[in-house]
Amino acid sequence: MLFHVRMDVHLPRDLPAGERDAILAREKAYSQELQRSGEWRHIWRIAGAYANVSIFDVADNARLHEILSGLPLFPFMTIAVMPLLRHPSAIRDDDT
Amino acid sequence: MLFHVRMDVHLPRDLPAGERDAILAREKAYSQELQRSGEWRHIWRIAGAYANVSIFDVADNARLHEILSGLPLFPFMTIAVMPLLRHPSAIRDDDT
Amino acid sequence: MLFHVRMDVHLPRDLPAGERDAILAREKAYSQELQRSGEWRHIWRIAGAYANVSIFDVADNARLHEILSGLPLFPFMTIAVMPLLRHPSAIRDDDT
Amino acid sequence: MLFHVRMDVHLPRDLPAGERDAILAREKAYSQELQRSGEWRHIWRIAGAYANVSIFDVADNARLHEILSGLPLFPFMTIAVMPLLRHPSAIRDDDT
Amino acid sequence: MLFHVRMDVHLPRDLPAGERDAILAREKAYSQELQRSGEWRHIWRIAGAYANVSIFDVADNARLHEILSGLPLFPFMTIAVMPLLRHPSAIRDDDT
Amino acid sequence: MLFHVRMDVHLPRDLPAGERDAILAREKAYSQELQRSGEWRHIWRIAGAYANVSIFDVADNARLHEILSGLPLFPFMTIAVMPLLRHPSAIRDDDT
Amino acid sequence: MLFHVRMDVHLPRDLPAGERDAILAREKAYSQELQRSGEWRHIWRIAGAYANVSIFDVADNARLHEILSGLPLFPFMTIAVMPLLRHPSAIRDDDT
Amino acid sequence: MLFHVRMDVHLPRDLPAGERDAILAREKAYSQELQRSGEWRHIWRIAGAYANVSIFDVADNARLHEILSGLPLFPFMTIAVMPLLRHPSAIRDDDT
Amino acid sequence: MLFHVRMDVHLPRDLPAGERDAILAREKAYSQELQRSGEWRHIWRIAGAYANVSIFDVADNARLHEILSGLPLFPFMTIAVMPLLRHPSAIRDDDT
Amino acid sequence: MLFHVRMDVHLPRDLPAGERDAILAREKAYSQELQRSGEWRHIWRIAGAYANVSIFDVADNARLHEILSGLPLFPFMTIAVMPLLRHPSAIRDDDT
Repeated sequence: MLFHVRMDVHLPRDLPAGERDAILAREKAYSQELQRSGEWRHIWRIAGAYANVSIFDVADNARLHEILSGLPLFPFMTIAVMPLLRHPSAIRDDDT
Repeated sequence: MLFHVRMDVHLPRDLPAGERDAILAREKAYSQELQRSGEWRHIWRIAGAYANVSIFDVADNARLHEILSGLPLFPFMTIAVMPLLRHPSAIRDDDT
Repeated sequence: MLFHVRMDVHLPRDLPAGERDAILAREKAYSQELQRSGEWRHIWRIAGAYANVSIFDVADNARLHEILSGLPLFPFMTIAVMPLLRHPSAIRDDDT
Repeated sequence: MLFHVRMDVHLPRDLPAGERDAILAREKAYSQELQRSGEWRHIWRIAGAYANVSIFDVADNARLHEILSGLPLFPFMTIAVMPLLRHPSAIRDDDT
Repeated sequence: MLFHVRMDVHLPRDLPAGERDAILAREKAYSQELQRSGEWRHIWRIAGAYANVSIFDVADNARLHEILSGLPLFPFMTIAVMPLLRHPSAIRDDDT
Repeated sequence: MLFHVRMDVHLPRDLPAGERDAILAREKAYSQELQRSGEWRHIWRIAGAYANVSIFDVADNARLHEILSGLPLFPFMTIAVMPLLRHPSAIRDDDT
Repeated sequence: MLFHVRMDVHLPRDLPAGERDAILAREKAYSQELQRSGEWRHIWRIAGAYANVSIFDVADNARLHEILSGLPLFPFMTIAVMPLLRHPSAIRDDDT
Repeated sequence: MLFHVRMDVHLPRDLPAGERDAILAREKAYSQELQRSGEWRHIWRIAGAYANVSIFDVADNARLHEILSGLPLFPFMTIAVMPLLRHPSAIRDDDT
Repeated sequence: MLFHVRMDVHLPRDLPAGERDAILAREKAYSQELQRSGEWRHIWRIAGAYANVSIFDVADNARLHEILSGLPLFPFMTIAVMPLLRHPSAIRDDDT
Repeated sequence: MLFHVRMDVHLPRDLPAGERDAILAREKAYSQELQRSGEWRHIWRIAGAYANVSIFDVADNARLHEILSGLPLFPFMTIAVMPLLRHPSAIRDDDT
């Protein structure tokens, strides 16, 4: 089941550089593991912003929340979620 | 080059059924032709809305505008565009 | 899987009374059938508004959209959807 | 009498972990006691957000405010309230 | 139980003068009857607007909705409702 | 002359408890003195919010500002003002 | 007593030219008479908009509303009102 | 050339009293000097707010920015600018 | 003197094709004449929208309004104006 | 390929003066180098704001993001991006 998620990151200025780098490294590993497993299907950077648009393919709402609330950057993010479904004009098999 | 586009459709109530059906048929053909050519890379329906989220892969801004302003439903749409780029954490080859 | 849906109804003034009454009767039957089947789990009127808040329990996003886009009042509604899940503090069995 | 309440939680980063945990434990106990008494009729998590949607069934506005302003997390919440009533299409006895 | 209600009126330009005058006369009678019965406790015009702020004192949410949805101008109004309660600093007996 | 005023209070977390209590005590005394003098005609709490709706009856705009900017909580408030006048449908003598 | 008023005009496209011209002529006469009497103290056009910013000097809120609701263009305007007072740094006698 | 400027002031709570008083004294002198020179043509306080509405009469946009960015309170202000011009219904010589 | 102007066009559906084409032809001629004279310094289409961003270089606010309110499409546009000036980091002679 | 970018700067009050001056000096050099290379085609100050409107001419979205995220002031900016293209009425060769 597909979800559209936009994440905007706001790192506080007083976050120590070491802590920040550790969080970002964990975030990247976390994201790539979920991309490899297929649940985080797409991720794109939005030009000019510290933000991304992602497509998730998960079993249900609970799993989506588990993934999002487990993001190392979760405390520093504004997140917007929209449930998606196959469009009647879609032709790609994997737009479902 | 990737663009994120959200399209919300507002069909006026007094659009004759025949005209409406013809527009929708042309819209579907137009979209599927661009999906086949690869420029309209993804399209998803947003649950509960007469709206879609799409990803376009086009040569430049001018080509994006040419495609969007040529949509048979263009006069009945509200359109929001965001330029995208590869995310540093992306692993899929085609998220570029 | 649970979804929170708010529906605001805007009936155009020039909708003939007979057509309006027929739509409202079909809407009521449609809603009650889904309530009986368990997919439309709750519905409440919002005080002072021609609007409702509803909780749906459906198999997936596609089924939610099928239900909402099939509402007889769908062309006259503004709809807002939020995916829900069990709250860690919930104690009722049916808040899942 | 029913009320729809949305609560968004914003915990300040400099809240000591011990204080935070104590507040969250009190919040959970407070919520569950009111759920058992029947005044906090439903609570759901909103996917991707540190927020919930709740339905309260209370004697009057004053009691609603007493409950909400007594929440251990009240100083860290944005709260939105909407009075509800039975919908004319509702069929469940407990949607009143 | 007190409620704060703001009503903004938007009369369509093509409403026949006779129909409009009849609606306004019924609206005035309806409002004054409820003021006399005590349920419509206050009403004030907002300077520069075709709008009012009112305070209602009703038994419950359902009665508030019955009154508001029964307004002759209801189809032409935007209505915003806020539940009120006695303020801890209030000294007037009738601010409850 | 009547004014509708909404006040939302935002107390900073690092305000020392003693200072906060002193401000709140002064605020209450200030409000009650103006209620007794008749210039602060009504005050109600908004359910679920640290906020009030008040009606002032003052000589002019300058006096209104003098009262509001003199509130002990003024530095911690967001204030919205609307000038009111007697509604043509009002029947109470004191809705003027 | 001073008020800041912004008026945005939206003339419907199907207003007959003769009717429109008559309304605009009455609007101009109405405005100039009030400027001469001193109650409509200033009026400026906002560049690029069919809108004005005006300063009124009236006896009270009721008089302000009488003037604004009597504008020939009132049914075609969006109006925003802010009560003003002398600024402590003002040096002009007539900024009061 | 006329400009409408609204300035909202937000003084941080931790600004030392001495520094704050010095800034406010410089702000007042700065404003009054420009009022005397004729470039700051009007200034009014907005009732209930730490804000003013002002009318500037300056040679060009660059001079307007020079004045505004030179305000001692500039770092603590939110500023909104609208270019004005003579209204076709204006009768005062100095509304130009 | 430079101004940033965004124009969004909303052509009503019932505008006869002949009238629409005549307006668009006059709009193009009007714009190009002002581009040639130097007052309409830049114009760009916004991708995906029936809208443009333009830079005007005019003598004063009054001239800007004369140009904008004279646009053949003016009755069908939403216009937003921002006064600009030379940026301290600019190096191009014609960014003034 | 052209992009319209608005940048609003918010320097935190506790940024040490030396650090601030160093950032601003690097920002100016960075901007001027890109102006000289032709990628940062225009930059204007917005009157009354610590903000600019800029036009970029870059190879693609990725290059635009590289430039913007590399701005020394990037952590202190709110940035809004709109893709542009040649307007059908444009006559200047360099509005492409």
